[in-house]
Amino acid sequence: MKISLLIFLVLSISCSTSKTKSPHDPLPSWADTDIKKSIIQYVTAVTKEGSENFVPVEDRVATFDNDGTLWAEKPIVQGLFALERSHAMGLKIKPSSDLSEKDLAKLMMKTHTGMSEEKFEEEASYFIKTAHHPKLRVPIRNTIYQPQLELLNYLRAHGFQVYISSGGTIGFMRTFSQDFYQVPPENVIGTYFANTFDPKSNTLMRKPKFEFINDKETKPVGIRRHIGKRPIFACGNVGQGGDIYMLRYSQGAKYPSFQMLVNHDDGVREFEYKEKDNISLNWASNFGWKVLSMKRDWKTIFPPVKSE
Amino acid sequence: MKISLLIFLVLSISCSTSKTKSPHDPLPSWADTDIKKSIIQYVTAVTKEGSENFVPVEDRVATFDNDGTLWAEKPIVQGLFALERSHAMGLKIKPSSDLSEKDLAKLMMKTHTGMSEEKFEEEASYFIKTAHHPKLRVPIRNTIYQPQLELLNYLRAHGFQVYISSGGTIGFMRTFSQDFYQVPPENVIGTYFANTFDPKSNTLMRKPKFEFINDKETKPVGIRRHIGKRPIFACGNVGQGGDIYMLRYSQGAKYPSFQMLVNHDDGVREFEYKEKDNISLNWASNFGWKVLSMKRDWKTIFPPVKSE
Repeated sequence: MKISLLIFLVLSISCSTSKTKSPHDPLPSWADTDIKKSIIQYVTAVTKEGSENFVPVEDRVATFDNDGTLWAEKPIVQGLFALERSHAMGLKIKPSSDLSEKDLAKLMMKTHTGMSEEKFEEEASYFIKTAHHPKLRVPIRNTIYQPQLELLNYLRAHGFQVYISSGGTIGFMRTFSQDFYQVPPENVIGTYFANTFDPKSNTLMRKPKFEFINDKETKPVGIRRHIGKRPIFACGNVGQGGDIYMLRYSQGAKYPSFQMLVNHDDGVREFEYKEKDNISLNWASNFGWKVLSMKRDWKTIFPPVKSE
Repeated sequence: MKISLLIFLVLSISCSTSKTKSPHDPLPSWADTDIKKSIIQYVTAVTKEGSENFVPVEDRVATFDNDGTLWAEKPIVQGLFALERSHAMGLKIKPSSDLSEKDLAKLMMKTHTGMSEEKFEEEASYFIKTAHHPKLRVPIRNTIYQPQLELLNYLRAHGFQVYISSGGTIGFMRTFSQDFYQVPPENVIGTYFANTFDPKSNTLMRKPKFEFINDKETKPVGIRRHIGKRPIFACGNVGQGGDIYMLRYSQGAKYPSFQMLVNHDDGVREFEYKEKDNISLNWASNFGWKVLSMKRDWKTIFPPVKSE
């Protein structure tokens, strides 16, 4: 009884400390623009006990897309892995610049299946640790966005459960989600191949068939199945319209919610690209989502490269 | 800094308190038999820092079946709900005693789909709160097993993440998992129907098609997709052979693991039934799993009925 009281006091002190305005900026890589202010305002409002916008801790769910939202997507890193595997397997394929989305899916089917989950994990882990980005010329772990790491930490420090919801496959993402983003494997939602249980080896084998593709209209489906709650904070990016349904679904939460799209408008420090049909920015404007300009809103984009 | 030190001390005290032999029995509804001893021995071994059997907290994953493992399954509660809905919908159906597994699946398809996830949740929650067990003549919440509640708490107190992995549907189970078992919605793995996103209402609609059935060989598949880790503690029951692959999969963990089957051998206090092919008990014997006798190993089966 004494101990639990003490824990309660300790937690109360630490919570109230983190809530008072701290001299430490929780988002140092973010420029002092409206986006940063609105994030802090929102998080403060939903975590302030007694406030009319208060959200109980168990419902503080945040979902982030991965490619183009948490790390660079030009080119898609999982595509690089598929290409590397196809070379190792001696497959004849088109030059990578000619790969369409369909070609990539076929290539993934050929290179990501036919082995046990554990074997795949081993291959993907090795790639993630050793591969370099072909254009940025840095290790893959340096293509993640430093400001987003700060945002994930800031949300978690305020009781949010952070999930990744991506079109990438769960088996691939789980090899780095903890190490890169401090997102544990169980918080990764994504595309997956069919599996069969092999009793002989007591392992799950990967079959060359997509069983679920987590993209566009199916992102809400994946989130519902995995979490059973609507995210109150959802972040995606302008690129292929892949995140608009996730953000829309988040707006249906019974609590005040926050939606944000990363816009790739910094061709100097990262990549500059738009959507042909402009659908993500149109929806953002229709539904009142925040649009983050990488050029304007982020002081730094990538974490510093550490020497080995 | 001072605060974090204080938290550390508090946690150290509370952890060491729970580890030393406490005068409080963590499993008071369990008889003092070998099963109880082996559970405590196992949990102590894998959570003792420095021990060769130590398992890091992030890998302490426990999975429990639901029907027949955490609550009574004669009859299947979700079947009762399907019957109640079918009456409300005016459907003509066979008497419940004649329902085969196939009939039940068809009935679920008819009564559990065609509405939004939220609408279904509302219906299921109402049923769970108001329905009574037809044979035990108690509210549904009193058909859960008191000893298992204690075991779930005991595991959680030792850093385990507890998941349910059941043939029941996730949407149904999530309406009571937190309230009955303190298992949050995001820790529920189960069967699910196909969904489509309806942009007009911003909801997910339930379609009359099973997209994934979480039973037998597919239980490892559901666990892998949801958690990405093998459970080190897995518990199912003798009944339809539904849990044997989950237990086998758990044995493939890279850590010491624990498997247990609940055997329904208490026709006086609960129900007595066997499998025709005896497959669960055969596997238990082949692979060294614990078999729990409800008659011998549980002092109490159900929690006391509280007056309203």
